[in-house]
Amino acid sequence: MFLRRHRITKPDGRYLIYYSFEGRLPPPLVVAGGQPAPATAGPDPEPGRMELRWHPLLEEWVIVATERQERTFLPPAEYCPLCPTRDPSAPTEVPASDYELVVFENRFPSFRRDAPEPPPTAAPYAAAAGSGVCEVVLYSPEHDSTLGAMPLAVVRRLVDVWRDRYRELAARPEVAYVFIFENRGREIGVTLTHPHGQIYAFPYLPPRVERELAAAARFRAEAGGCLHCAVLERERSERTRLVAENEAFTAFVPYFARLPYEVHLVSRRHRSSLLELSPRERDGLAGLLKTVLLKYDHLWGFPMPFTMVMHQQPTDGREHPDCHFHVEFGPLYRSRDKLKYLAGCETGAGSFINDTLPEQKAEELRWAEPRT
Amino acid sequence: MFLRRHRITKPDGRYLIYYSFEGRLPPPLVVAGGQPAPATAGPDPEPGRMELRWHPLLEEWVIVATERQERTFLPPAEYCPLCPTRDPSAPTEVPASDYELVVFENRFPSFRRDAPEPPPTAAPYAAAAGSGVCEVVLYSPEHDSTLGAMPLAVVRRLVDVWRDRYRELAARPEVAYVFIFENRGREIGVTLTHPHGQIYAFPYLPPRVERELAAAARFRAEAGGCLHCAVLERERSERTRLVAENEAFTAFVPYFARLPYEVHLVSRRHRSSLLELSPRERDGLAGLLKTVLLKYDHLWGFPMPFTMVMHQQPTDGREHPDCHFHVEFGPLYRSRDKLKYLAGCETGAGSFINDTLPEQKAEELRWAEPRT
Repeated sequence: MFLRRHRITKPDGRYLIYYSFEGRLPPPLVVAGGQPAPATAGPDPEPGRMELRWHPLLEEWVIVATERQERTFLPPAEYCPLCPTRDPSAPTEVPASDYELVVFENRFPSFRRDAPEPPPTAAPYAAAAGSGVCEVVLYSPEHDSTLGAMPLAVVRRLVDVWRDRYRELAARPEVAYVFIFENRGREIGVTLTHPHGQIYAFPYLPPRVERELAAAARFRAEAGGCLHCAVLERERSERTRLVAENEAFTAFVPYFARLPYEVHLVSRRHRSSLLELSPRERDGLAGLLKTVLLKYDHLWGFPMPFTMVMHQQPTDGREHPDCHFHVEFGPLYRSRDKLKYLAGCETGAGSFINDTLPEQKAEELRWAEPRT
Repeated sequence: MFLRRHRITKPDGRYLIYYSFEGRLPPPLVVAGGQPAPATAGPDPEPGRMELRWHPLLEEWVIVATERQERTFLPPAEYCPLCPTRDPSAPTEVPASDYELVVFENRFPSFRRDAPEPPPTAAPYAAAAGSGVCEVVLYSPEHDSTLGAMPLAVVRRLVDVWRDRYRELAARPEVAYVFIFENRGREIGVTLTHPHGQIYAFPYLPPRVERELAAAARFRAEAGGCLHCAVLERERSERTRLVAENEAFTAFVPYFARLPYEVHLVSRRHRSSLLELSPRERDGLAGLLKTVLLKYDHLWGFPMPFTMVMHQQPTDGREHPDCHFHVEFGPLYRSRDKLKYLAGCETGAGSFINDTLPEQKAEELRWAEPRT
């Protein structure tokens, strides 16, 4: 498989990269420069603010990004900004009549490469520039699809695109963490339904990643070895919570699942990031991703809304021997017709209530297969 | 004001307490013993599981409580289990034809006094009994109301009921934290619309509380003094984020708000819990609560869905000098017609994105008043 990249700069300065695998040349530009039509009507009502504010009570950064408030909200399919440009007089985000996989800078980002310096503040508060990169990853030119329904070859290519993005963004000096994720479903606030994921290149270690690394470091100090390897061994020996497995990856509902239908997809060998995965391990990742995604699509006959997030090696230049590459799915339903909400106990106390038994949810997912 | 309590035991063993302030005798029981009709149809499909499971990756307990899955879901008003019992042949949770304020044990709890021992597990996992108490607090016999719309005297009485519950639950040896909260609005998953709040008496320090205490302890060690007092001083000197204030409490959208329209209501004096508040301070708490609640009711002409949570002194027998009593409101909307969702960035990375400027949201709330 041979990956080709063709990078352009949009009129507003954002980059866009066409990824091509089928040996085709980069698609012809249908918009030869010039200013594309704005995706929203009229100018922003006020100049946006983008900055990081320190939360002294929880010791973490909060991202303030007010331009996001104006982001495009569930447009009709014929105005989808993520489809290829069919009518050159009304270009979408992708100025080409077709594409394979595309990555571009988010028009409504949480971080930007040229983030302004924030107004100063005083202790116990602190502010910092929201420096970083927010990318959108288009999985396919087809508007109505899901990642699981796409051919395995497309999922496999996406793995290589993620890997390429991880490598490129990791090399930026301000980037401490490359966070690859997908929010799927209107129920989770997705504002564009075209199949796509996102990448946030953080200027700091996100709090959840920091806590996970600290826990793994304590485990190594007290019990020895990698915590994720120990979890994997436990799940593989008990078997009751396994969902699917191949040579390279194991998918399970963890004993400690905070959400019903939560699935962790963990590398069977101790690998720290996408960069460490061999081509065969990447085949395995793509294969098991597709398997799990199809289960989420078919369990109830409609695509289950979820968050899919990847945890891997920070890119802050420090050593993190406890990192173990894995993907976590956080579905939003507690049953076919009921959403799981994060309410007072989860947000105000930080304690998750799981109304279901992980062993039962794993069994349901084990048996969920496409009906033919 | 004179608080009277009348405690009964329901046929299934749960306690219920009538709180009376108006000197009335406890209301007559309309159901003289006997088994009340079950609130759901038929028996549970399987015996429920209730236990705590240790999340080794985040070093926190996850509550597993499968009976909750069967909880009553948005019944029509005439079947509301939280209304007084109008028809003795169909008793509600409250076997009386009227009441003032009522507290009873949740029928679908996350913890229980007689929690079973969980099945054993092996490292890196751990399990514990879900020992504790989950209470429901009925604010009023009126089905269609909100706390903010109730007379100030009722809010004031509720403060004393919370205080009484805090004292009683704190005295239980297994209870490490008394968490008083309200989830309001279907958008947040509320399954019963009758005005009520909840109390979870945790057998452990909830993770968010633990982090907040650790941050405050670090602040005391490094900068000296109470972190919450420092935040309060900063907000009161900058004034741009103040929402309302009285002699005893200050309400503001903090500089570091994670949610649009987030409000913190903080005791102006360093008080650790409801027990430390003087009667005048409790007057002040009730008054400012009502003010803020009315703003949430009137900003958009419909009651804004929110979580309201109280943070106060743990009851684990240890010293916590950094505790500073406060109430946090976490509204669920980012604008009049758009919900704020917790998606991949918030749940998978633990980083909150606020699409709004706290200073602007504070100004909106300052001006939001009941229209007469």
